[in-house]
Amino acid sequence: MSSHYSYPTPLGQHRISKLSSRLLLGCALSVSAMSVNAALNVEPMSWWAGMQQPTLQILIAGDNIRDTQVKLIKAEGVTLNSVDKTDSNDHLFVNLDLSQAKPQQLTLGLYKDDQLVDQFDYELQTRQKGSRDRQGFSNKDVIYLITPDRFANGNPDNDNHPDMLEKADRSFDGGRHGGDIMGIRKALPYLHNLGVTQLWINPLLENNQQKYSYHGYSTTDFYKIDPRFGSNQEYQALVEEAQTFGIGIIQDVVVNHMGSGHKWMSSMPSNTWINGQSRWLKDPTDVSYSSHRRTTVQDPYSVNADTVDFSDGWFDVTMPDLNQRDPHMATYLIQNSIWWVEYAGLSGIREDTYSYADKDFLTAWSKAIMDEYPHFNIVGEEWSSNPVTVSYWQAGKKNADGYQSFAPSMMDFPLYDTLIASLTKEENWGAGFIDLYQMLANDVVYANPSQLVLFEGNHDTNRIYSLLKNDIELYKMAMAYVLTSNRIPQIFYGSEIVMQSPTEDRNDGAVRADFPGGWPQDSVNVFTGKGLNAQQTEALTFVRTLLNYRKNSLAIQQGKLQHFVPKDGVYVQSRHQGDETLLIIYNKNSQAIELDLQRFKPAINDNTAGVDIISKQSYSLSKPLTLSNKGVTILKLNR
Amino acid sequence: MSSHYSYPTPLGQHRISKLSSRLLLGCALSVSAMSVNAALNVEPMSWWAGMQQPTLQILIAGDNIRDTQVKLIKAEGVTLNSVDKTDSNDHLFVNLDLSQAKPQQLTLGLYKDDQLVDQFDYELQTRQKGSRDRQGFSNKDVIYLITPDRFANGNPDNDNHPDMLEKADRSFDGGRHGGDIMGIRKALPYLHNLGVTQLWINPLLENNQQKYSYHGYSTTDFYKIDPRFGSNQEYQALVEEAQTFGIGIIQDVVVNHMGSGHKWMSSMPSNTWINGQSRWLKDPTDVSYSSHRRTTVQDPYSVNADTVDFSDGWFDVTMPDLNQRDPHMATYLIQNSIWWVEYAGLSGIREDTYSYADKDFLTAWSKAIMDEYPHFNIVGEEWSSNPVTVSYWQAGKKNADGYQSFAPSMMDFPLYDTLIASLTKEENWGAGFIDLYQMLANDVVYANPSQLVLFEGNHDTNRIYSLLKNDIELYKMAMAYVLTSNRIPQIFYGSEIVMQSPTEDRNDGAVRADFPGGWPQDSVNVFTGKGLNAQQTEALTFVRTLLNYRKNSLAIQQGKLQHFVPKDGVYVQSRHQGDETLLIIYNKNSQAIELDLQRFKPAINDNTAGVDIISKQSYSLSKPLTLSNKGVTILKLNR
Repeated sequence: MSSHYSYPTPLGQHRISKLSSRLLLGCALSVSAMSVNAALNVEPMSWWAGMQQPTLQILIAGDNIRDTQVKLIKAEGVTLNSVDKTDSNDHLFVNLDLSQAKPQQLTLGLYKDDQLVDQFDYELQTRQKGSRDRQGFSNKDVIYLITPDRFANGNPDNDNHPDMLEKADRSFDGGRHGGDIMGIRKALPYLHNLGVTQLWINPLLENNQQKYSYHGYSTTDFYKIDPRFGSNQEYQALVEEAQTFGIGIIQDVVVNHMGSGHKWMSSMPSNTWINGQSRWLKDPTDVSYSSHRRTTVQDPYSVNADTVDFSDGWFDVTMPDLNQRDPHMATYLIQNSIWWVEYAGLSGIREDTYSYADKDFLTAWSKAIMDEYPHFNIVGEEWSSNPVTVSYWQAGKKNADGYQSFAPSMMDFPLYDTLIASLTKEENWGAGFIDLYQMLANDVVYANPSQLVLFEGNHDTNRIYSLLKNDIELYKMAMAYVLTSNRIPQIFYGSEIVMQSPTEDRNDGAVRADFPGGWPQDSVNVFTGKGLNAQQTEALTFVRTLLNYRKNSLAIQQGKLQHFVPKDGVYVQSRHQGDETLLIIYNKNSQAIELDLQRFKPAINDNTAGVDIISKQSYSLSKPLTLSNKGVTILKLNR
Repeated sequence: MSSHYSYPTPLGQHRISKLSSRLLLGCALSVSAMSVNAALNVEPMSWWAGMQQPTLQILIAGDNIRDTQVKLIKAEGVTLNSVDKTDSNDHLFVNLDLSQAKPQQLTLGLYKDDQLVDQFDYELQTRQKGSRDRQGFSNKDVIYLITPDRFANGNPDNDNHPDMLEKADRSFDGGRHGGDIMGIRKALPYLHNLGVTQLWINPLLENNQQKYSYHGYSTTDFYKIDPRFGSNQEYQALVEEAQTFGIGIIQDVVVNHMGSGHKWMSSMPSNTWINGQSRWLKDPTDVSYSSHRRTTVQDPYSVNADTVDFSDGWFDVTMPDLNQRDPHMATYLIQNSIWWVEYAGLSGIREDTYSYADKDFLTAWSKAIMDEYPHFNIVGEEWSSNPVTVSYWQAGKKNADGYQSFAPSMMDFPLYDTLIASLTKEENWGAGFIDLYQMLANDVVYANPSQLVLFEGNHDTNRIYSLLKNDIELYKMAMAYVLTSNRIPQIFYGSEIVMQSPTEDRNDGAVRADFPGGWPQDSVNVFTGKGLNAQQTEALTFVRTLLNYRKNSLAIQQGKLQHFVPKDGVYVQSRHQGDETLLIIYNKNSQAIELDLQRFKPAINDNTAGVDIISKQSYSLSKPLTLSNKGVTILKLNR
């Protein structure tokens, strides 16, 4: 969309769009806000009739449109509630009431002295059937996180784009490598076979930044897929095709900040659009960075200035911090999230840097989305090892200060951190499995611990296999723990083939390495199995077997969890639902041991035998279990 | 009291006690349950009319009394509700209803075939005026913990006692050193002058054990002060005299276990009196020790056997674990705690190894005491670094499992641990003061964080001065933190004169070293000031000045707490109430720095100057504060 509009422009010079609304709907396109001269920028680009929230804020950007009057030229059952002006000459906020509106193409006009100076069509589309009742990701699912630039290059033709500043450079680990939506589409059979049921994809929105744009967290257009990943339509098609594989798509949403390349940075819709705006306007290098002191927003004794230092500071000079206390900005962001759910057909949102946004806004944002889609799911990222800190943001939590959230899920960083630490520590009375055992007792601080997303790694953590010292048995324990936990599990692309990284500090380039087989020239190809070494094959088989078992396991998806105090290097958990009981035995002993099963009677009950769901080996439960070496054994019990 | 009773004994042979009830009341003696032959053991030894809880369980021990009938011979307004028999031949539980009873001397008779075979008098005393409304220790107070064997030997004549197994041996750091109640009484002027307002004294009850009896945690008589410390009457006198100095007494109560030397170990009142009883009876060396896995009693996923391993295991072979699920034992323990509050005139209870006792019992125990004394205070010891774990046991906490406690306070081990760690760590972005800052945000998990008792050390921790590397400035920071916190502060005897110990592992002998001046021959005498070195004097002056300031400081006792994100090695807290504002500046910089006060405006408000409450030095607040070296500065602000 062009960003400039020359005012005044005589109506007669306007070129009428040839694209009819029927065509738009037919191909499920959403670029339906058409200015007669295409010089107005209208966001959201379209909307739907019959949404739960009946009002809509349309942000119109155009040079010097402040003094125009907005009127509905063609509209049935639509009320123009108000037009809000800020101090920006180039922006208007139009507030519509759509409660009585049917799907239709609206036409809105901009008038000056009762003279129509511009007009644009605006599509109110028909909602997909069942849209409101869509099921968000849940304990039934396994989420697979993809860094799209690094997963698979399905369409080498879009690696570069003339309008996009940064060009592909696969030789640079901080550069764009060409992975895209088409690559993900082509991987769907692999992912389905692996047993994955949800994809969380790192942000796909346009990041037209000079450099380091591949990660996607510097949005420069909130309504447009980055052309180097594909198009809005390709994204829609991915979601549709993934659904045929039983796979949902979770969008990575960023409401805290945007990219410095966003057009707003040259024309702000209001003077409170970003935090530190006036200061930045005076001197673009004069940026106050976030203190990253996340407890300040929960601490009963913190002072406001410290809270502001945390939530209003920028992440980076290239990531201006959005001011969600500006009500127009807040509505813009809320609508933007809902737009993508509705437009693309999402099954979830992963919200980046959750606590860094204004907390009252986060309440409104999460509530608006969950009001619109009552069975949807949102998982927030609160990167803290402290369950108390994380629990603050989960829906249902009765916080000491009365703060309410409506985000059903949070990333379980505390349990992730403890998992890694407990596996890497040597076992003794006070360390090792006992850390993991004791951490679970903290579940009491969560409103709903089973709704947390537990992961073995993500784009910000070092690779699990490396963190576990390239020990395949420890790796299997970690994967088994995540995948059999009373959580919603999430794995990171490549973990199934033990991708590696350094283990100290951050190593984004190595962590987000290209997935083998995602590029035509790759010598190893995970999709075909070509060139995998023994450990990769072993890991892949383990993960695939477990994931496919999990798909139909009510015990894992919703069963009762019990666990037993770790002793002598062995930690046992059980999951139980109906006729299905799993005994999951984590063993750190390298020497063979005999495990007396008497202690585990509360889980074993009257079962007499067990089958290892990975190796299919059978075991009798009437005598001690021989564990011949370190590793995890997942037994499905039977009588 | 003798523990054997020869049955049957003709009534005529009984010796009638000469001690009248009037005399008993007159000298406030409580040994009022007098068997006619003094061979019955009756507990509680006496009770009071007009208690909130109208029922009383009297445990009568005597050889072969099981088959006797108990009747009231002399009693007005007293109902004998029932007599409970267990499988013990030698014990009876008599349940009285005292709701209509006035103070009086009862006489109870034991009958066999309608023949009186024994009788005893039982005193229902008059309660002290205001007993029910006694004020427990509170935020107004500073608690001083005394290990009585190691504080002061006020009466060398009681260092040994013919009936007590262990003899004094001051040369052995695990032996008895002779400290006693008289020593504490003599120290009252010193303690008052120091600014202490409550004494928590490690257990004073009889510990007639072979060895290591000095610590007091192996009770062998629940109703008797150990004669090497003094007598019940001396204890009463201590409380009375302490009150004249404005000092209350907090009793250290142990309900989890007793000493193996208790007479019950040769004649149990029931077959469920202690945990592991039948096993122990078969083989006294066959003891199951506590797993010390304290989360098992809170963990939503733990199994019962693991909970039992924690709460029913013994602490030591010399510390049989009491079974509070035995309702007679539960009532015995509850009455015993209330008896000491009423008898001695206590202002609080410190409950040892809190979570190790049966949790339902702990609810009943804490509720009974708080119902009896609504303004009383109880602080429990839950030795965990995790606020979630500790918070579970505090009154008012809404626990996930619905568990309710009535103990108003818990020891703040999490904050203590963090205080030490934060002071000893080098300052950087992620460690040091920031740990302390962030820990306070966890206050949200407590029902009432300001009711927690924060300490700088106790009889189980290594000495603060040593832990802080003999750094007097770090020491002052720690003391200032504890004493100006929004907590009830507690210090450990000798910390005011920087007593030292090793810092790794436990060092009970060194930690509980004799207080200088507590023994006549001591070359250093804190009470007179003789022989103190420069650092001892500096520390003592600091603590005394701060404690005496605190006595009248509403800002510290109940003021609003604010704190500021630590930066550049400086951490600032403020306390504010009415006209009083304190700015407490912790500075780890060894080099002089200029501290810009602008950030602290929310605490400073319109004050323009401050006076260091220790040095009395004045500072202007209109310019940066010069902090010339490491240390704590406590400024009282003014306009």
